[in-house]
Amino acid sequence: MYCGQVQPIQFRKCLKAWHWREYEQVKYQVRAAVDGDNSRNCSSPRIDSSPLCSGRKEDAEMSQQHAVNGVLPKGKVLTLETMNPHVKKVEYAVRGPIVQRAVQLEKELREGVKKPFTEVIRANIGDAHAMGQKPITFLRQVLALCAYPPLLEDNKFPEDAKERARRILGACGGQSLGAYSASPGIECIRQDVSRYIEKRDGGIPSNPDNIYLSTGASDAIVTILKLLICGEGHSRTGVMISIPQYPLYSAALAELGAVQINYYLDEDKCWSLDLKELKRAVTEAREHCHPRVLCIINPGNPTGQVQSRECIEEVIRFAKEEKLFLMADEVYQDNVYAEGCKFHSFKKVLFEMGPEYSSTVEMASFHSTSKCYMGECGFRGGYMEVLNMDPDVKTQLTKLVSVRLCPPVPGQALLDMVVNPPRPEEPSYNTFIKERTAVLAALAEKARMTEDMFNTIPGITCNPVQGAMYTFPRVSLPQKAIDKAKEEGCVPDMYYCMRLLEEEGICLVPGSGFGQRDGTYHFRMTILPPAEKLKIVLQKIKDYHLRFTKEFS
Amino acid sequence: MYCGQVQPIQFRKCLKAWHWREYEQVKYQVRAAVDGDNSRNCSSPRIDSSPLCSGRKEDAEMSQQHAVNGVLPKGKVLTLETMNPHVKKVEYAVRGPIVQRAVQLEKELREGVKKPFTEVIRANIGDAHAMGQKPITFLRQVLALCAYPPLLEDNKFPEDAKERARRILGACGGQSLGAYSASPGIECIRQDVSRYIEKRDGGIPSNPDNIYLSTGASDAIVTILKLLICGEGHSRTGVMISIPQYPLYSAALAELGAVQINYYLDEDKCWSLDLKELKRAVTEAREHCHPRVLCIINPGNPTGQVQSRECIEEVIRFAKEEKLFLMADEVYQDNVYAEGCKFHSFKKVLFEMGPEYSSTVEMASFHSTSKCYMGECGFRGGYMEVLNMDPDVKTQLTKLVSVRLCPPVPGQALLDMVVNPPRPEEPSYNTFIKERTAVLAALAEKARMTEDMFNTIPGITCNPVQGAMYTFPRVSLPQKAIDKAKEEGCVPDMYYCMRLLEEEGICLVPGSGFGQRDGTYHFRMTILPPAEKLKIVLQKIKDYHLRFTKEFS
Repeated sequence: MYCGQVQPIQFRKCLKAWHWREYEQVKYQVRAAVDGDNSRNCSSPRIDSSPLCSGRKEDAEMSQQHAVNGVLPKGKVLTLETMNPHVKKVEYAVRGPIVQRAVQLEKELREGVKKPFTEVIRANIGDAHAMGQKPITFLRQVLALCAYPPLLEDNKFPEDAKERARRILGACGGQSLGAYSASPGIECIRQDVSRYIEKRDGGIPSNPDNIYLSTGASDAIVTILKLLICGEGHSRTGVMISIPQYPLYSAALAELGAVQINYYLDEDKCWSLDLKELKRAVTEAREHCHPRVLCIINPGNPTGQVQSRECIEEVIRFAKEEKLFLMADEVYQDNVYAEGCKFHSFKKVLFEMGPEYSSTVEMASFHSTSKCYMGECGFRGGYMEVLNMDPDVKTQLTKLVSVRLCPPVPGQALLDMVVNPPRPEEPSYNTFIKERTAVLAALAEKARMTEDMFNTIPGITCNPVQGAMYTFPRVSLPQKAIDKAKEEGCVPDMYYCMRLLEEEGICLVPGSGFGQRDGTYHFRMTILPPAEKLKIVLQKIKDYHLRFTKEFS
Repeated sequence: MYCGQVQPIQFRKCLKAWHWREYEQVKYQVRAAVDGDNSRNCSSPRIDSSPLCSGRKEDAEMSQQHAVNGVLPKGKVLTLETMNPHVKKVEYAVRGPIVQRAVQLEKELREGVKKPFTEVIRANIGDAHAMGQKPITFLRQVLALCAYPPLLEDNKFPEDAKERARRILGACGGQSLGAYSASPGIECIRQDVSRYIEKRDGGIPSNPDNIYLSTGASDAIVTILKLLICGEGHSRTGVMISIPQYPLYSAALAELGAVQINYYLDEDKCWSLDLKELKRAVTEAREHCHPRVLCIINPGNPTGQVQSRECIEEVIRFAKEEKLFLMADEVYQDNVYAEGCKFHSFKKVLFEMGPEYSSTVEMASFHSTSKCYMGECGFRGGYMEVLNMDPDVKTQLTKLVSVRLCPPVPGQALLDMVVNPPRPEEPSYNTFIKERTAVLAALAEKARMTEDMFNTIPGITCNPVQGAMYTFPRVSLPQKAIDKAKEEGCVPDMYYCMRLLEEEGICLVPGSGFGQRDGTYHFRMTILPPAEKLKIVLQKIKDYHLRFTKEFS
């Protein structure tokens, strides 16, 4: 393969790891596969700079041997060989090679290149506004008022929006969004978050001192992991994550040098979490690392399941028994669609289990302005609540977040609207409720539509989208397609998705980017496109799948 | 000390490291010093939870020995003893114990507690809006338009602001600030940044592919350090930073486990950078680590110097010879006040030195929306330009930033206004120029005022504030004051600043938080308070200093 310079097995490994430069090669391959032209593979100009080419090894060793006898090595200071190896191990499928290729295709379309489609539909990421969802009026009115306070004199804005803006500005240094806030966030917003949590959880108390505002949920999740991850060898911190998982987790663990402990969700039972599987995973992990953290995403990403109250109780009991710090990623807490499903916060269940649990189990819960009915991803707003955290560690956490000064203040302001929305007696209430309800109802409809449609396609099976914003259907790939993908040096579901992109302009993420049981194949698709467009997308996937299956049967 | 439980030497070490919990103890001490009451020292409730108390050691060892023979250790999962030790080493003086105490004093004032002052003046951090600087109208108009697009129909907004808003929204997914952007930032803003750099540097080309937008400059600085820092023992990456330094650097190095290599600025020569000192530092460091990075802050923080063109050339030559990756922190590039001083970008000098340098020296330069005339800290906007970065590493950098999805979009929009301000023919131009000039002229005036005033105080010497936003005067402390501080378990300049805060309500940062030559003492003060208030602040510091010196002479 590739003029015999690189072994297929190496290249496949490389693709699996999604080294982005190598994507260039994949692209050529996939194109070749589509065009029936293999000659371009050999012409890839990047092949010589691949870390898999043996010629680079000596350089690498030379670069790492620095300044021996005062002679400095030649070449660059910072190369693939001399950079931080932890960063090299990081993978992030949601913005991986498929998305890079989608961007390129969009550019080609703009430039008039003929394609079998007229637009690229990006169903790879939970980016609601990009998919056409309109911002909630009240949120944006308050933001505009905060950004440009002379608008407070404008009678086009409702009084409740002005009151909120005045309150937020009053809590900002110099009454400006442009001042740094306190590092854990603006005090009155932290208080509002606490009140919101208390109301959500039926009155269980929340202390504003336990609330840390953040730059989206990702920031807070990585911050907690930073506190927890340390040790070497057998003492290295192990972090339990579900498979399939949201790749922020695996990326952060790679970067921080933790051991990733996989526990598999049960696809046959609606991606539910099985206690036996958790026990298996932790027991095996104790042989070689120090399991200290259990991460749960509920409602699930990418799998869309909503955990039952009983299951949450079991998880909490397990965390206590096994001495694990619980990280509850609850950013989809408003996104529950299926009949009989309900969002139960880990905190509420913890407190209902009594003081034996509520005063001992260490936990952090995460929320964000990016999901739910808001979909305000670009503002990077979020918060976490920490429970039972050692006060000395909390002091360290406060110190750690202070180094980055503060989360973006517009995102903090937006979060305040989310946790302190218009009240029934206020002028913006009706519009707000109408807009919120419409967004959530549309998502519920699209969740059903997606499940139904996928289950009509022979070779695709799809669990109900109980919550969140994604479906993670399983795809049966013909053996010949798997062989072909392997021949192309490509993981099979990547091959499947890349061809879908090239042929239909639909951008999905292969299941291998989230993890899946060996020998199974999936993709993640968001349910965010508008209903009419989603119907077309589903139909195109159906046509493609039937065509693909036929080609390789 | 403390009822004989903790040795003074331990406590002093702890204070030096600014473990925040221990600050509670410092506070009691300082209060005691002020009140002449020592009895409160013993009543500190936190003393038993101090990591310095010997009783905790066994716990620590037990916690670290996990699950031996299947028996899990008691106590919390995450404690000071079992947390990531790198995070524990992080210090960040700018938001350290003095600021914590300032917050508390403000609260006490609000609650009606009598103090020798009526307000706390925070001159500890470069937070312009919090000090009363007004936002630039054009910037905020565009932001309001972007946040709430129905305002585009409002004839109160000038056409150029609307045109900018339309352009930014057109580049956002779904025409909304709420969509994620590309991870390195919105494409057209990266192009605008490039054009800005080209114009600034007299036409030297800038490639938008080398521009990465960021969450303030701090984010970009840490991202580059993450790529560079690796290795163990003798191979551990060493990073050269100036002393005094901005503590983001030392904090990031501690967190990432790098070796901090100090090079001292020459206080006697206006805090200039001396090549011999750089050579001394790197040569000594090569004995025990692998120096790979040289960080420069120009204009200087906290020291306010502006580097000459010759000096920058020397630094670049040095970086090339010693094979160092250059990190040029240029966030104060518009903040130059002194006659004869001019901002020279590292990139411009690099290119003027010819291809031998411009095509080889690896460099990243950082800028931010938080400083200069904008002072928009809360938006967390910024960018970096990378030069001569290995393409494979750049791919890794793009992957790394994608894990956090994207920098806050409102901050990106704001940055676009900074690099693409109103043009002379546009309606907002005059107001924009007037506002910008006023801010910079006021800063220049305050820079002179500060230097002049400090130099009238016996025992204080102050270099010219050539640029940036800070003064870093040197304070002679009487030996008796030093002894008293030591007796109180306090570093002397911390003792000096803490008493200033308690007695006058002025919040400064002790020099020890930035680093200084042994036996010298300084503080950092921003020049940001409005001129009238700054005069009062300076007078109060003078009175306090004279009183303090008299007390201990």
